[in-house]
Amino acid sequence: MARPGGRSARVQEAVHTAVRELAEEVGRDALTVPLIAARAEVTPSTIYRRWGDLQALLSDVAVERLRPETPPQDLGDLRTDLQAWAEQFLDEMASPAGRAYIRDALLGDPDGSNAGQCSAYAAEQIDVILARAADRGETGPGVETVLDHVVAPMMYRILFRPSGHDAAYARSLVATVLDAHSSP
Amino acid sequence: MARPGGRSARVQEAVHTAVRELAEEVGRDALTVPLIAARAEVTPSTIYRRWGDLQALLSDVAVERLRPETPPQDLGDLRTDLQAWAEQFLDEMASPAGRAYIRDALLGDPDGSNAGQCSAYAAEQIDVILARAADRGETGPGVETVLDHVVAPMMYRILFRPSGHDAAYARSLVATVLDAHSSP
Repeated sequence: MARPGGRSARVQEAVHTAVRELAEEVGRDALTVPLIAARAEVTPSTIYRRWGDLQALLSDVAVERLRPETPPQDLGDLRTDLQAWAEQFLDEMASPAGRAYIRDALLGDPDGSNAGQCSAYAAEQIDVILARAADRGETGPGVETVLDHVVAPMMYRILFRPSGHDAAYARSLVATVLDAHSSP
Repeated sequence: MARPGGRSARVQEAVHTAVRELAEEVGRDALTVPLIAARAEVTPSTIYRRWGDLQALLSDVAVERLRPETPPQDLGDLRTDLQAWAEQFLDEMASPAGRAYIRDALLGDPDGSNAGQCSAYAAEQIDVILARAADRGETGPGVETVLDHVVAPMMYRILFRPSGHDAAYARSLVATVLDAHSSP
């Protein structure tokens, strides 16, 4: 996402900030490239050249907002850590803001790289939790198993199903994957 | 989706057909409401009144295309039936056309009803397979378990991850869920 260099990085920062501010002030659906350009003090053609269109820009901004800000909490054991992380993930992603970001990330993203980044963020957080568990001597499933059987069902519910967006659901997915792993 | 009545049903049929034909002729990205209206021999305002905007219309057409045309094959036992269904589902959904329909279904769908319909189609097909298995005296997991641990991982890979879109992956998900069910 981040491009090297001075002016380029400043343009990206100014444009992303303009999108975030304007989305709060006028709402996401009222955003236009000229409006964003004026706020960021760049020309519309700078935005078109760099991002292609509004949807691609919104996709980049969404992925940036979906980036986790802190590592997952260390609560002492694998099950507690993973359940706490899954609960928080579901809570954030199922919120109106989270849904809007997921939608934007998926939409203006013809080559799938932004969607892939969203998945990579989740994988990194899970990796931290699993590495900590290994350090404690706990055995657990692999990161792919957690993505398939904890993250995927939560995202599928958020995108395709009206129910199952609560903490109990997140905890039950974690319990299922850990119990399956511990009974060979 | 289907609205009762003569004229209304005819308009829907004509507009859906126009979208499908024009998407093949000029490409999905070149579709406009006036173009579709002209082909369907209705006024643009008929389309705006009924669907709101182009994206909502494309979402309805996409869901219609994602509707399964036949019940899942009966191949003699639960594992074979579910693996064959999962392989075919992944193959269709991960194809360029399948991805485009999923994307359209999700996008022009503010209330989530079209996305919910996509999930309902999968649930109906799985229900048929599970009911047949029960008739044979086979025990199996519930439909929710299959949605969470077979359908959801496939859709998550299609939308968010660049790999895992092959038949072996579909079969392994089915094997995992059936093995977990049979070992208490």
